[in-house]
Amino acid sequence: MNLPSQMRALVQLGDGFSGTRTGPEIDDLAPFLTLRSVPVPDVGPGQALIKVHLAAVNPSDIHFIKGEYGQPRSKGMPAGFEAVGEVVAGDTPLMGQRVSFFATASGAWAEYALTDASRLVPCRPDLSEVAAAGQLVNPLTAIAMFDLVKEARAESFVLNAAGSQLGKYLIALGKDHGIAPIAVVRRADQAAPLRALGAAQVIVSSEEDALAKAEQTFRNLPPAILLDAVGDQFTADLFFAMPRHATWVNYGKLATEAPRLTELGQLIFMNKRITGFWLTRWINQAGPDRVRAAFVEIQTRFVSGTWTTDVAATVPLSQAMTDLPAALAISDGKVFIDPRR
Amino acid sequence: MNLPSQMRALVQLGDGFSGTRTGPEIDDLAPFLTLRSVPVPDVGPGQALIKVHLAAVNPSDIHFIKGEYGQPRSKGMPAGFEAVGEVVAGDTPLMGQRVSFFATASGAWAEYALTDASRLVPCRPDLSEVAAAGQLVNPLTAIAMFDLVKEARAESFVLNAAGSQLGKYLIALGKDHGIAPIAVVRRADQAAPLRALGAAQVIVSSEEDALAKAEQTFRNLPPAILLDAVGDQFTADLFFAMPRHATWVNYGKLATEAPRLTELGQLIFMNKRITGFWLTRWINQAGPDRVRAAFVEIQTRFVSGTWTTDVAATVPLSQAMTDLPAALAISDGKVFIDPRR
Repeated sequence: MNLPSQMRALVQLGDGFSGTRTGPEIDDLAPFLTLRSVPVPDVGPGQALIKVHLAAVNPSDIHFIKGEYGQPRSKGMPAGFEAVGEVVAGDTPLMGQRVSFFATASGAWAEYALTDASRLVPCRPDLSEVAAAGQLVNPLTAIAMFDLVKEARAESFVLNAAGSQLGKYLIALGKDHGIAPIAVVRRADQAAPLRALGAAQVIVSSEEDALAKAEQTFRNLPPAILLDAVGDQFTADLFFAMPRHATWVNYGKLATEAPRLTELGQLIFMNKRITGFWLTRWINQAGPDRVRAAFVEIQTRFVSGTWTTDVAATVPLSQAMTDLPAALAISDGKVFIDPRR
Repeated sequence: MNLPSQMRALVQLGDGFSGTRTGPEIDDLAPFLTLRSVPVPDVGPGQALIKVHLAAVNPSDIHFIKGEYGQPRSKGMPAGFEAVGEVVAGDTPLMGQRVSFFATASGAWAEYALTDASRLVPCRPDLSEVAAAGQLVNPLTAIAMFDLVKEARAESFVLNAAGSQLGKYLIALGKDHGIAPIAVVRRADQAAPLRALGAAQVIVSSEEDALAKAEQTFRNLPPAILLDAVGDQFTADLFFAMPRHATWVNYGKLATEAPRLTELGQLIFMNKRITGFWLTRWINQAGPDRVRAAFVEIQTRFVSGTWTTDVAATVPLSQAMTDLPAALAISDGKVFIDPRR
């Protein structure tokens, strides 16, 4: 295949960490990204070049371009972690095939992306493009964190930001495994759709009796694991309302406040603990066989319809600088970038 | 042996939990205890009655009588958890022998105490009375928590309230095992004696550059475990200044403030975690062989002098209501109650 020498890409303007803490919202991309023509990346040993079909936009992408994620930015590099596309060059037997991938060497918000060839995930032909574009970060996180829920052998588990795509995957997993999902959301109108998906109870954190309702629910359906993407005081209050042996697993930080440990003694006398979950670490610890099995399950779930991808918007790469913030402000569903347009 | 029917005891006035959080200080025992003549407890199956020689006063005793400990008070029962004495009745081959014990059925601040016969710890004849009276709570906690330090295989560990008896035991263990103790204290005058005991560095939390000094120390001697008896914001700040994989182990709450988790993302990206340590749980999990081995080590340490007990005061039971608060206000050393006087 003849590859062009130049490509369009959303290139990072910032370098390293910003030191700010502004959360996942974004009104304007201009301080952080620019649409520019850059050279198509050279393929090194062990790498694969992918012609991007569709790239996902995750909260971690926004944290990252703002310099507020756990990894430093690299000025001049295309942004975008997750996508689906066709392998067009590199050291891999998957040449010419459709793969999902996590861009480690050159970002996915571009016509071409570069990554580690050993981490490509081949896609079933019947897997939709949106499912394929978003099957790594959220679905794999859901499967990995649900392992913790299963190991805890409790009647229920608690998750916040439950209206997110990841939240919906977790609720479906809970329903299928008979472990009651206790879903925490901010707005009352999020409750009904999550109940329909299988949430045993929905706690609306903005309501005055939210904590009392949670305490009542925890008595009827004792949970062991709290999966937390928010990290606010209400999350800490929920944790301290949970029964003995509860584990608070933080995996994201949608809130900007710092929660206070008002009941530290529960860590002593009730054997509670606070930990974090990072997908990158899980992948390394779980090993390739567990990860491969997870992708078989993920693709089966999407094809069979037990998981669905709610699409809020698909933004052409050429219009992303102007249209992406408005698309991300849509409260339900996932946003994608199409680099072919 | 002919046992009397009545005995003198410091009896609890409160019941259950108080709901207050006043910390470990105490100015006046009168709201919580009274010196009274009560019946010598009846010995039930599996129990042993001990004539108390000397009882320890631990911070957990004060938390307990104030209704601020993890276990509920029992109105009318003698207080006091830990002591040494002679077995005078019950279902045990240790009858007539000197034992250390943790009073589970009737408290040790009394002429006689009642406990589970299976948990008696026989004392070597060359073990001093003060060492024997205090060999359970602090020494066993030190041995148990130092297991965590050893398992972490780091160059150093951090402990606060380092001037306490338990802190001194931990510093001696660190020195003997070649794991550098980084000791945190409140007052500058506590630094020199802890350095003499083996502390590699002493951080004085009241000094303005305390955190900067800790960060410098952590770079030279990276720690993995923070053993925390305080639970204040400075402890949280220390934890967030520690390197990747650090674990904050809380085992006490000398501070009344609730620390804020200002760097929650470190739990995700740096694999840090926050847990609690409770001796009662450790004893059940470690099993009788590990506990027996620990007491052999503890008694050897006291007899050989690698551990010493600093005595602040020994208060006669008859004068405890008036004299105990002043004795506890002495900043260095341990306080004992003598029920024979």
